[in-house]
Amino acid sequence: MNDASPPAFFRQSHAPDDRQRWAVKIEYDGTGLVGWQRQKAGLSVQQLLEEAAARLAGGRDVPSITAGRTDARVHATGQVAHLDFPISMPLNPRAVRDGLSYHLKDHPVVILAAAPVAPTWSARFSAIRRRYRYRLLNRPSRPGIEANRVWHVRHPLDVPAMQSATQILLGQHDFSTFRAVACQAKSPIRTLDRLDITRDGDLILFDVEARSFLHHQVRNLVGTLQLIGCRRWDSEHLRTALEARDRCAGGPTAPSEGLYLVGVDYDPDPFG
Amino acid sequence: MNDASPPAFFRQSHAPDDRQRWAVKIEYDGTGLVGWQRQKAGLSVQQLLEEAAARLAGGRDVPSITAGRTDARVHATGQVAHLDFPISMPLNPRAVRDGLSYHLKDHPVVILAAAPVAPTWSARFSAIRRRYRYRLLNRPSRPGIEANRVWHVRHPLDVPAMQSATQILLGQHDFSTFRAVACQAKSPIRTLDRLDITRDGDLILFDVEARSFLHHQVRNLVGTLQLIGCRRWDSEHLRTALEARDRCAGGPTAPSEGLYLVGVDYDPDPFG
Repeated sequence: MNDASPPAFFRQSHAPDDRQRWAVKIEYDGTGLVGWQRQKAGLSVQQLLEEAAARLAGGRDVPSITAGRTDARVHATGQVAHLDFPISMPLNPRAVRDGLSYHLKDHPVVILAAAPVAPTWSARFSAIRRRYRYRLLNRPSRPGIEANRVWHVRHPLDVPAMQSATQILLGQHDFSTFRAVACQAKSPIRTLDRLDITRDGDLILFDVEARSFLHHQVRNLVGTLQLIGCRRWDSEHLRTALEARDRCAGGPTAPSEGLYLVGVDYDPDPFG
Repeated sequence: MNDASPPAFFRQSHAPDDRQRWAVKIEYDGTGLVGWQRQKAGLSVQQLLEEAAARLAGGRDVPSITAGRTDARVHATGQVAHLDFPISMPLNPRAVRDGLSYHLKDHPVVILAAAPVAPTWSARFSAIRRRYRYRLLNRPSRPGIEANRVWHVRHPLDVPAMQSATQILLGQHDFSTFRAVACQAKSPIRTLDRLDITRDGDLILFDVEARSFLHHQVRNLVGTLQLIGCRRWDSEHLRTALEARDRCAGGPTAPSEGLYLVGVDYDPDPFG
């Protein structure tokens, strides 16, 4: 994902006068998708959502903006976007939710909630917090049920070692070490508000929260913490890597299929 | 599933002298499978497991017996079976686990553990407890990520009402009301040791344990409890239905995709 400053063509943030803006909460299985953003290479969530909205709007274009531009194969249980429908349409929350879901029925994408919002409200710029969960399956056997839903790591990971290393990462830092080379954000400074690691049977869950993230930041953090979990790195190595402010000093990028955008927070909550 | 008395051709329970018996713990996604038992209609777990074992055994037949003959589309995270390998093969737990999993790699079936057992040990007849979990997604929107992994019920269910109704079902009863017409068990008497219902967000989980179950018993219990959850039945209705000892008095069979065989217990635990 990349929550950084948008390119110029995304900057229009007010709904035009002839439009009504709706916020939608979306769940999707990213396995067969190329990610949020439209691409020629395959189906994106954006394309599916906008095509469903256009069908609901009788063929008129309905542009969308999202809170988190998830990468290919990344999942979401609480993605948020806004859609600008023609002002003439009679809409209500249930009709938007069920109407969009109906037109998405051939795809693993579903609308969980819909709510009308002010023309100045933005799924992207009004967000005060993004919440991600990374799911790692830590056992010798590959996943039988959760293929494409977890990162499978065979060797046993030291969870307490990873937990204590998170202290180095929490708070405000220059996260250049954990930022994709292609990241478009102007600043590499971010504030990590939460990085909890818990074991649940064979699963290791990473719960990560911040106002916004750099491109690949969560996956780069998890990939690096995994080096600590298998004792190839210690905490001092992590501190040195963070202070290097250089992607080359960081660990590998954890695979996209373990990552879930679980929620985006707004104040007030439009779905509240 | 059907854990009842086996047909005659299953009764051979001792491993022959030229065989070594191994217990295996299996996880599978039942979605594309016809269930445990071999059928001409499609791929079964039994066929996949026995073909993998035959490849490991250099082409020789390796018969299997399972603890729970799950139906089509039912999943397992802790199924147990035993396999009779030729006595001449040098085997160890890791080689059996990883060798079988390797030959299963094109299918959503994986071996979690393997252990040598006595020739008289039986995955089916030595089991002292079967544990099932039924997962119900209770929200207006269909599953985006967990299609084929849950039963989707749109209308809100009254979990406390279902919880208090379980008191009627716990313990030893004639469960004819909750038994598939095709069930082969000699007796409809079973002892339900656990029936816990918990809500976890939009999921409602039914955790059910007994020494053995009748065919469709868990799915029939869940389908009937759901009638209480949506207030079409009250507890008295459930009591009357149980006492009728008649499948026609029971509620509908909950769909197979919500059901998981999560574990089978033995004393001692061969995988311990």
